[in-house]
Amino acid sequence: MKKLKLISQNSLDQKDDSLSNIIKWLNDDISKVNSVILDKMSSKVPLISQLSGYIISSGGKRIRPILTLATSKLCKYSGERHINLAASIEFIHTATLLHDDVVDESIQRRGQKSANLVWDNKSSILVGDFLLSKAFRLMIKDGSHRCLDVMSKASLEISQGEVLQLLTNNNIKTSESQYYNVITAKTAELFAAACTISGIISEVGKDKENSLYEYGKYLGISFQIIDDTLDYCSNDNSFGKNIGDDFKEGKVTLPIILAFTRSNEIEKRFWLKAINEKKQCGNDLMNAIEIINKYDVIKDCFEKAKNFSLMAKDSLGPFESSHEKERLIELANFSFNREY
Amino acid sequence: MKKLKLISQNSLDQKDDSLSNIIKWLNDDISKVNSVILDKMSSKVPLISQLSGYIISSGGKRIRPILTLATSKLCKYSGERHINLAASIEFIHTATLLHDDVVDESIQRRGQKSANLVWDNKSSILVGDFLLSKAFRLMIKDGSHRCLDVMSKASLEISQGEVLQLLTNNNIKTSESQYYNVITAKTAELFAAACTISGIISEVGKDKENSLYEYGKYLGISFQIIDDTLDYCSNDNSFGKNIGDDFKEGKVTLPIILAFTRSNEIEKRFWLKAINEKKQCGNDLMNAIEIINKYDVIKDCFEKAKNFSLMAKDSLGPFESSHEKERLIELANFSFNREY
Repeated sequence: MKKLKLISQNSLDQKDDSLSNIIKWLNDDISKVNSVILDKMSSKVPLISQLSGYIISSGGKRIRPILTLATSKLCKYSGERHINLAASIEFIHTATLLHDDVVDESIQRRGQKSANLVWDNKSSILVGDFLLSKAFRLMIKDGSHRCLDVMSKASLEISQGEVLQLLTNNNIKTSESQYYNVITAKTAELFAAACTISGIISEVGKDKENSLYEYGKYLGISFQIIDDTLDYCSNDNSFGKNIGDDFKEGKVTLPIILAFTRSNEIEKRFWLKAINEKKQCGNDLMNAIEIINKYDVIKDCFEKAKNFSLMAKDSLGPFESSHEKERLIELANFSFNREY
Repeated sequence: MKKLKLISQNSLDQKDDSLSNIIKWLNDDISKVNSVILDKMSSKVPLISQLSGYIISSGGKRIRPILTLATSKLCKYSGERHINLAASIEFIHTATLLHDDVVDESIQRRGQKSANLVWDNKSSILVGDFLLSKAFRLMIKDGSHRCLDVMSKASLEISQGEVLQLLTNNNIKTSESQYYNVITAKTAELFAAACTISGIISEVGKDKENSLYEYGKYLGISFQIIDDTLDYCSNDNSFGKNIGDDFKEGKVTLPIILAFTRSNEIEKRFWLKAINEKKQCGNDLMNAIEIINKYDVIKDCFEKAKNFSLMAKDSLGPFESSHEKERLIELANFSFNREY
């Protein structure tokens, strides 16, 4: 479908390229993580290597392993353990993507056909299981009981968040706080874990560990809000989705939660029919976007994300000023100031 | 469908009740494991607790945790760690059952409707993920790096075995050795892990650990062969499946691998049509069973399982004679001498 140009309403004059700068900064470590990922995703069963390779090489922002690498630098970590742990974090994430796409009956992921479409649901489920077990194998190899505890807790939270999301699907009456519960569990906990483990391996102590946990959590919430918002307004090819995918799937995210709350009776009936009763016709997405714009919802979603990013930045209080801290602050700015 | 009475062909005069004796023997520990399972499967998301409860309380033989409990007794283990580890093994198994049922599009499990039918595929996938993460949480709580290594390796093997099985489905030309590769990965490795961890927590040393690993592995192969064979000849309600389920799903297991190898040209065409081309009509299951019987396949499957059970029993060589060892030998006898 035609991609709408709505992002300018968010007062974003140009694309934030802090992520590119951060990637340049972490380049050596990112290469190492990619090598571990390529090595560990291979299996004696060729189908597993092929399917894992397909989804992993399809890109994505790799924001979770980047968080582990960046926070390790913040903690002045000098060893090599962060490499395998970052790869493990990415494996947990990739496993959930594969299962997500089956659950959502997706046809596209990261701008290309989703794996469940190229192969089938069965293979996506089982290769997801493989990657989750691989993630645990990598963590176990690292040997830190505390990292295992943090990461396995995040993995457990993700599955609970995904089920919670299933229960909010097609329920336009989902509250804003229920939405935050879902995205905290399904997204923010893994962001938080990705940061916390750097503190653990660097032995920075409880205060700084908590600070890293909070930073990751708020950043994750901010990221997810923007992801969900871009689904109604992105005009960037790098976003990897077409706008309106969530709407068509009846996924209840912040933009339509806010739009529904602010809607008049006629508009409320529209939402109930399109989302709860799953009765959508050709113009419904345009209609939804019109209501969203009428109530300035996109701007408010960006503001809310910005607020969580601010909380993320302030969470770093226990860390002294440094070049590395500046980078993490840039990352928090990028989280809400992006088009992809 | 009418259940056929073919089991008598296997020269089994009466149902072996060694499993009941073993359950009586381990009664206290089994109760403790059940308590841990009930406690740990609960979640803040009610749907998760309900679905987990449904599949876990539906029974099953609980053979995997029983193996951990029984081998712990063999190793004269006197602590309590085997309880949580046994529960963890059952969680790994239950997670794979939930995903299996989605992958196989099953409608029945353990004599009742499968969870994917009562709820849906989405919930089964996500609750499977939840249980797998819970399993890891339980193992991590135990704290033994070596147990984690053994159990995570088994979990990884299961996912690879499941994918391998996917590739043999609807391929009647699957070889007997490919079949053993599949069942070793998808079943026997977890049986082996269930036994090995008892050796680890009891600190019996490498020789006995290996002996436990081999015992579990061969027992697992024997068990799976009989499970697959009963699918063509069980007349026992406790089996929890109707005969012919594997045939209808085009699952290529030992009975039809042997039957195909021994078939004449006309019969081979029948198998190719029914299994590879998925063209089955009303009489095909009866026809399949007739060919299976013509070539004495059921008897041979039981013989092969018996042989693996013998290997399991002989694997226990490094352990001195004891009451506990006798029980494990009885369990190995039960594995091939059963109707459910």
